[in-house]
Amino acid sequence: MSISKNQLKLITSLSSKKYRQKHNLFIAEGVKVVQEFLNSSYVLEKLFCVNDFIIDVDENKIQRITEEELQKVSKLKSANKVLGLFKIPEENSKKNNGLIVALDAINDPGNLGTIIRLCDWFGVNELVCSKDTVDCYNNKVVQASMGSLTRVSIRYVNLIEYLQASNIPKFIADMDGTNVYKTELPKEGILIMGNEANGISKEIRAEVTNKISIPRFGNKQETESLNVATATAILLSEFKRGY
Amino acid sequence: MSISKNQLKLITSLSSKKYRQKHNLFIAEGVKVVQEFLNSSYVLEKLFCVNDFIIDVDENKIQRITEEELQKVSKLKSANKVLGLFKIPEENSKKNNGLIVALDAINDPGNLGTIIRLCDWFGVNELVCSKDTVDCYNNKVVQASMGSLTRVSIRYVNLIEYLQASNIPKFIADMDGTNVYKTELPKEGILIMGNEANGISKEIRAEVTNKISIPRFGNKQETESLNVATATAILLSEFKRGY
Repeated sequence: MSISKNQLKLITSLSSKKYRQKHNLFIAEGVKVVQEFLNSSYVLEKLFCVNDFIIDVDENKIQRITEEELQKVSKLKSANKVLGLFKIPEENSKKNNGLIVALDAINDPGNLGTIIRLCDWFGVNELVCSKDTVDCYNNKVVQASMGSLTRVSIRYVNLIEYLQASNIPKFIADMDGTNVYKTELPKEGILIMGNEANGISKEIRAEVTNKISIPRFGNKQETESLNVATATAILLSEFKRGY
Repeated sequence: MSISKNQLKLITSLSSKKYRQKHNLFIAEGVKVVQEFLNSSYVLEKLFCVNDFIIDVDENKIQRITEEELQKVSKLKSANKVLGLFKIPEENSKKNNGLIVALDAINDPGNLGTIIRLCDWFGVNELVCSKDTVDCYNNKVVQASMGSLTRVSIRYVNLIEYLQASNIPKFIADMDGTNVYKTELPKEGILIMGNEANGISKEIRAEVTNKISIPRFGNKQETESLNVATATAILLSEFKRGY
């Protein structure tokens, strides 16, 4: 059985957030990533699978296709055996275990994917995103997060209202902040990271009193700032290293 | 004056390492990155520049072209005003100021670019790469390193021989290593990071006695390992934070 025109149209449409929301579906690809979603509480809608591939899934949900058909619908350069359509779950806030990461207008899917992996590694199970942060069910985010999406709870909120309603300490990375290596960091807090080009917006800065900086050890003033994903890695490591 | 056929052929050929080495040239693009190379000791061969763009460079080295022509030769999705051909300098070892980073078969240009930026930020001015690490004059590395290439000295060596000849402490990241947060790290040392899929080769492991790990704080065993660039960020931060 091959892919129908309607299925082709549906899969293509899921590259856009509008249609992901309309159909309440997103795409995960490749054996490893798909397997992570299958092992989680995510609900499979349909699995497109190359003919000879063996996978432990309800046969009613599997549709066998050729490698050529898979490559045709794949968003990857080289398609890898399977493409799954999963249901977008309802946003739910997990029990917060201390540190929360909040993102203000992160644009790059690769950066969001890397940050989701970092949250997973460092045991941060709540990631809060401003409404203008890239959608976490964007194909590139799903692939870059390598299944960590199944273990980190992500919510899209009005970030200013969220921060105003919260009374735990809030931190932003800022070149003029105190040296993070010499700052005592609490177990409970919100670490806010900002947009790749513009940093954290003025409105959000106004809500925050704790400014921390990663010192620059290179001599030259011209050194570019750190990429937001690598800065998040260093700051999460600092928050967690003492505990 | 427009781009000649021969120039077009030359620029296209510079996507390949073989031709970069043959012509001893590499490509840097975009106003910011090109300006960093112009401000450095790198030698400009030719600057292709859109007609109305003002830049302080010897007019003999500038060739004015249209936006369409620039987009045609550009490796970027949206070309940005200028494309420069620069001479590949001779490899030279700078005075080593303590910490050295060594890379074993890093494949991904984005990862190498990010690691070059990190070295720049953390004041590591010597980066040693195995011969099978991606070429640092690869277009994507040049763009991802954002000019940091002008401040970090990079050498391609037989990594095993290099490590055998060196008598300073050598460190690798290894899941079974000692907790990096509880390890006293020296000011002088070599931090070795390995290939994205296979980690550090057996031969190199045999040369190293210090194994350090970044603890995993997430509960689940399935958590993917950290990406090599984010792991480098955390480890460089640990080496430098005490100094």
